[in-house]
Amino acid sequence: MTAENNPPRVPRPIQYGEYLQLDQLLSAQKLESQRYGTAAHDELLFIITHQAYELWFKQIVFELESVIDIFDNSTVEDREMGQIIGWLSRITEIQTVLLQQIDVIETMTPLDFLDFRDLLVPASGFQSIQFKQIEIMMGIRREQRIPADRDFFLSRLTESERAKLSLLESRPNLLDLTDAWLRRMPFLTFGDFDFWREYARAVERMLESDRKIIAMNPALTAEHRQWQLSAIEVSKERFAAVLDRAKYDELRAAGEFRLSHQGFLAALFINLYRDEPMMYLPYRYLTLLLEIDQNFTNWRSRHALMVQRMLGRKIGTGGSSGHEYLSQTTERNRVFLDLFALSTFLLPRSALPKLPQELSRALGFHFAGAQRMAATTGN
Amino acid sequence: MTAENNPPRVPRPIQYGEYLQLDQLLSAQKLESQRYGTAAHDELLFIITHQAYELWFKQIVFELESVIDIFDNSTVEDREMGQIIGWLSRITEIQTVLLQQIDVIETMTPLDFLDFRDLLVPASGFQSIQFKQIEIMMGIRREQRIPADRDFFLSRLTESERAKLSLLESRPNLLDLTDAWLRRMPFLTFGDFDFWREYARAVERMLESDRKIIAMNPALTAEHRQWQLSAIEVSKERFAAVLDRAKYDELRAAGEFRLSHQGFLAALFINLYRDEPMMYLPYRYLTLLLEIDQNFTNWRSRHALMVQRMLGRKIGTGGSSGHEYLSQTTERNRVFLDLFALSTFLLPRSALPKLPQELSRALGFHFAGAQRMAATTGN
Amino acid sequence: MTAENNPPRVPRPIQYGEYLQLDQLLSAQKLESQRYGTAAHDELLFIITHQAYELWFKQIVFELESVIDIFDNSTVEDREMGQIIGWLSRITEIQTVLLQQIDVIETMTPLDFLDFRDLLVPASGFQSIQFKQIEIMMGIRREQRIPADRDFFLSRLTESERAKLSLLESRPNLLDLTDAWLRRMPFLTFGDFDFWREYARAVERMLESDRKIIAMNPALTAEHRQWQLSAIEVSKERFAAVLDRAKYDELRAAGEFRLSHQGFLAALFINLYRDEPMMYLPYRYLTLLLEIDQNFTNWRSRHALMVQRMLGRKIGTGGSSGHEYLSQTTERNRVFLDLFALSTFLLPRSALPKLPQELSRALGFHFAGAQRMAATTGN
Amino acid sequence: MTAENNPPRVPRPIQYGEYLQLDQLLSAQKLESQRYGTAAHDELLFIITHQAYELWFKQIVFELESVIDIFDNSTVEDREMGQIIGWLSRITEIQTVLLQQIDVIETMTPLDFLDFRDLLVPASGFQSIQFKQIEIMMGIRREQRIPADRDFFLSRLTESERAKLSLLESRPNLLDLTDAWLRRMPFLTFGDFDFWREYARAVERMLESDRKIIAMNPALTAEHRQWQLSAIEVSKERFAAVLDRAKYDELRAAGEFRLSHQGFLAALFINLYRDEPMMYLPYRYLTLLLEIDQNFTNWRSRHALMVQRMLGRKIGTGGSSGHEYLSQTTERNRVFLDLFALSTFLLPRSALPKLPQELSRALGFHFAGAQRMAATTGN
Repeated sequence: MTAENNPPRVPRPIQYGEYLQLDQLLSAQKLESQRYGTAAHDELLFIITHQAYELWFKQIVFELESVIDIFDNSTVEDREMGQIIGWLSRITEIQTVLLQQIDVIETMTPLDFLDFRDLLVPASGFQSIQFKQIEIMMGIRREQRIPADRDFFLSRLTESERAKLSLLESRPNLLDLTDAWLRRMPFLTFGDFDFWREYARAVERMLESDRKIIAMNPALTAEHRQWQLSAIEVSKERFAAVLDRAKYDELRAAGEFRLSHQGFLAALFINLYRDEPMMYLPYRYLTLLLEIDQNFTNWRSRHALMVQRMLGRKIGTGGSSGHEYLSQTTERNRVFLDLFALSTFLLPRSALPKLPQELSRALGFHFAGAQRMAATTGN
Repeated sequence: MTAENNPPRVPRPIQYGEYLQLDQLLSAQKLESQRYGTAAHDELLFIITHQAYELWFKQIVFELESVIDIFDNSTVEDREMGQIIGWLSRITEIQTVLLQQIDVIETMTPLDFLDFRDLLVPASGFQSIQFKQIEIMMGIRREQRIPADRDFFLSRLTESERAKLSLLESRPNLLDLTDAWLRRMPFLTFGDFDFWREYARAVERMLESDRKIIAMNPALTAEHRQWQLSAIEVSKERFAAVLDRAKYDELRAAGEFRLSHQGFLAALFINLYRDEPMMYLPYRYLTLLLEIDQNFTNWRSRHALMVQRMLGRKIGTGGSSGHEYLSQTTERNRVFLDLFALSTFLLPRSALPKLPQELSRALGFHFAGAQRMAATTGN
Repeated sequence: MTAENNPPRVPRPIQYGEYLQLDQLLSAQKLESQRYGTAAHDELLFIITHQAYELWFKQIVFELESVIDIFDNSTVEDREMGQIIGWLSRITEIQTVLLQQIDVIETMTPLDFLDFRDLLVPASGFQSIQFKQIEIMMGIRREQRIPADRDFFLSRLTESERAKLSLLESRPNLLDLTDAWLRRMPFLTFGDFDFWREYARAVERMLESDRKIIAMNPALTAEHRQWQLSAIEVSKERFAAVLDRAKYDELRAAGEFRLSHQGFLAALFINLYRDEPMMYLPYRYLTLLLEIDQNFTNWRSRHALMVQRMLGRKIGTGGSSGHEYLSQTTERNRVFLDLFALSTFLLPRSALPKLPQELSRALGFHFAGAQRMAATTGN
Repeated sequence: MTAENNPPRVPRPIQYGEYLQLDQLLSAQKLESQRYGTAAHDELLFIITHQAYELWFKQIVFELESVIDIFDNSTVEDREMGQIIGWLSRITEIQTVLLQQIDVIETMTPLDFLDFRDLLVPASGFQSIQFKQIEIMMGIRREQRIPADRDFFLSRLTESERAKLSLLESRPNLLDLTDAWLRRMPFLTFGDFDFWREYARAVERMLESDRKIIAMNPALTAEHRQWQLSAIEVSKERFAAVLDRAKYDELRAAGEFRLSHQGFLAALFINLYRDEPMMYLPYRYLTLLLEIDQNFTNWRSRHALMVQRMLGRKIGTGGSSGHEYLSQTTERNRVFLDLFALSTFLLPRSALPKLPQELSRALGFHFAGAQRMAATTGN
């Protein structure tokens, strides 16, 4: 049945409050302080801020699930990439709100918080299942977590919550699916052209130039010059590692990389040739993953400071050690560090190996077709 | 019973999800598009964004109620002013989040909205009772509203909603209570000192100086110079109006002012002498009212643009004319315009009448006492 | 000479302060208040904020020039579109900073401003040549401006400034170039397929459905139902106007549209089929134009409020009427209103005419080529 | 000479561009890439962003100097506190802009940066003298810095820059002056009332209650319960340290505190009794110091991530190790950590020792006087 034959949908009339289920939504704030005597003025803010977080987490979970559903296939269509990029951009906008909400919660002073803080034991932000879901879907693995963070699986969740999260851990996450998608990318060799051989040559030229620049930098003491020259040697080894699969896999086993060797190379290729039309969407996609990761890192770091300000060195709600815990997860729970590392391996456009014309054409739109049409329409 | 004799409160243990009533909160998103067939991807965002707005509106309503409760008394204690300022600052932080949320909703494109837009008839943002409560508590009067805005009382709300809002309109709002509080402020005359006589003299000196500056401004054409000199005459009349109660009341009747004459003068005094310690909290209070009003104005204006972008010239959800309606309320629904107008009547500090020493002392802390204490403690 | 044969560039060593010309930059703040006696504390802020604006304006001017340079050609390459989108995104980020800077300037209170305000006559923000350049490059025409705004060409600028801006007005602006680019877009007819005929049919179906929905909406009074049904007739006429070139041109002459008929249709096509890979970059481009325009509108509106707060009803620096002037330009100086209007003419995806397969293929990447490569590489 | 006798100041006419020295400002952007051949598109952005930073740094330096000038006296008047709070609030608003500017610079991609990166050697952000000035004025001491940070004094600055900063290090900074000001605060003992004795008793009662809550928390495993009970003992020792000057001084020598014992106690008192009118301004002052410190911490952390994204693991401009360096200073260069720690020592309002009535009166305004005036004016 085509759209043409569809009878118009005649929806039931619906009102604002009913649609948004405001009765249910706005009756879900019960103050513990009221239960034990006097309502603490700031407890409503405390509840509402956390509820706003959970609403937005629900949205993020939904968007991540939608992305994962598409990526969990053997091919991803270009027009799906457009949608995915829209959804990931949305997550970054939501993250801006999440960050801003910290300024709101900070209008509650430590003294005001004390009015009801000891009534909330052992409730704790650790117990936000949705936030754990987000972390797991992004690609945080249990073994990567700090011990206190890993422990929540054992001590702070219900049986069914633990089961739900464990199951999720066993399913494909965004990091793994992105890696698989990158590995499927063609283009790296093309007829006689072997991109990585050309790239290796270009790298050697660049490092040689860097060496010369350091050698002639008059602002450097002998000691610093030495230090920098040895840094170049380190760089050289790093480049070697990226070009030598065995070395890369070694570093990966040691935790320095998380993407597979081929996945990493494909990500690098996309970043190097992002100006090619066909690379535009893949490049936007990788950039958004990096930005989402970066935004969560910022949020964790802001959150840790806020908790320190609110609790000082006191134990947190629910008996956690608050600030220290959060500080540690800030760096530990990053997922797409490999994308941050990519810059290490970029070459200036002027030094980039030129793609063979046939490959370059394959990465663009076929303008011939378009132009023929243009001719047809008389434009 | 003193705190000392209180047995420690032994609260029941409470978990995160239970405390935040997450079951209730996170099950309150029902997609209309799903009811009629296929879920539209962006409908969840549409619901969650509006729910986040309603949560924050609840918090703003609560803070405004708390402020009104205190102001609805014959005296407001200084230590209450500190609290009130904290709550109003909180509203401004929440408003920053409200503004930011527009960027989130704008990640939904007009085309995506069309996937479920016609299912939401006649639901409309007009029907947000909480937003109307906020407007009424701030001080927006029914007769000030544009016709379409006034009509919602008749056509888009239920009987009981209408009754609730009508009752609220009959209760004291922040504008009226602030006016009453300002009218109670003493200090304007003090023994022989009549502040307003001194102020009138200072004004005349300043306008004379302005006239000279315009007369000698070589960049002005004769026509512009004339225009500016007549602007000075207009200023002069405005100052006269402020100093002459009868004229002021006339302008007020014509809608140019909303505060009473005495209230306006007191607000002006606070702004002029805000450096006096006793004026600090009142000044902060007035500034926050102005900022809250300004933030809502910004939000309305952003909201109007967003709706235009989303709906074009189409009729809005619920049959409203969307953009035009919102644009008109942006300017019309301002409350504390008088506080914006205050700047018109300020004088440079150098031109300000000096307060008599005794009055100035009364506006400060009694340092003698403090110093005596300091002596006692040997510091 | 290829990159391979280039000797490494051996740049002269350069230090931070020298590179940024900090001596020159940080000595460019001269307080007028100091010239006449005592430095006013807040004058430095006033100068620095305006200088920060001018620095950012320089960047925006540069990005707009770069975009215009590319568009001022008979073809725009896809890889250029990627760059252009990057530059326009940058402008939106700068605009966020411009908006944020208003919060900084508002930390100067009206009373503090009075300490040096009368020393700045007749200097005025009107005289920001760079801001005028931005307006003109975006596409604001002299005849569109309000009289006070138009007058600056005559009275507030130097001869050479006037000449510079007049020349710029005679050069192609972003609005005109975008229109020309849109007019060149093919695809609207394709063999037997006439897109606009299909579109007209789809519109008629949709309006019919809207009529039914309104007819059965029980929440509407007879009066409102009548009003809404007549709104549908207005819509119908609007659609007709878009599809009938003569009518469109009439409306355009009356100022309702600024894009040419063909340009408008092409923009509509891009919005309707933005999911097609080849439409992705054009769609992003149009969206960014809309957002830049929207951000300037927000900024103007915030700026107008700030000026009202700072000056009340007083005449502005330089003898302008400040708030009123700025309020009026907020709506008047919008450029890409047609892109906001596009939403009026969208159809739900379900109602969209399906593109012929051959056309759809032409709008995508040629996967065959890519897949052949994939085969070659053994992936 | 009184204001009355002053002749009106007749300032010279001044124009916008001249006032802001736009010729000088807008000619201070020289691209290195242009010097060596082709202008790199993004170099202008790189320069302008850094220049905007330096302009804002100049403003922050000025505000900090102004605050220090006032605090570097034996007494600080209440009306001066109002001003100081205004200036510090301004710094926080500027910091929001500084943070936002990172989003602008991130529109430059690593690949674009490579187009001119190697031309900027050895220039480096380390060399921003103004930023170092800010750090030193805030209270960062040379011995607190990480080695790489300390080294800049030796290797990356000119002789005269080094001398300038060394001199600044020898002058009073905000941390020291705040400490001195806190030490001067009276109120801690008052007649028979010894605040700290009462506080110690209240602490003991609170810890006892915490112990009971932990003991009965059913969600805790035996191990966690033990851990938390020992955390209480740690808390108890911390409280003891605060109340025992010798222990405090020991911890201070070990780097756990930076304020003097008496200064710390006064800061605690202000936080505990911030609702008293006389404590309002001091409380706001301390809160702003904390927020400025927190904002710089956020900015450093965002900056570090940005550098990592831009440079990967490559050495930074100027040969620094970029990301690692910045990450380390993020935590190390905090100044007002003691204010974050204060929350550790707060007591709930219900448990707070009640101040003697006479003391409480001394901390408020003398309303009697005000009321007498009110009576006089007949209000």
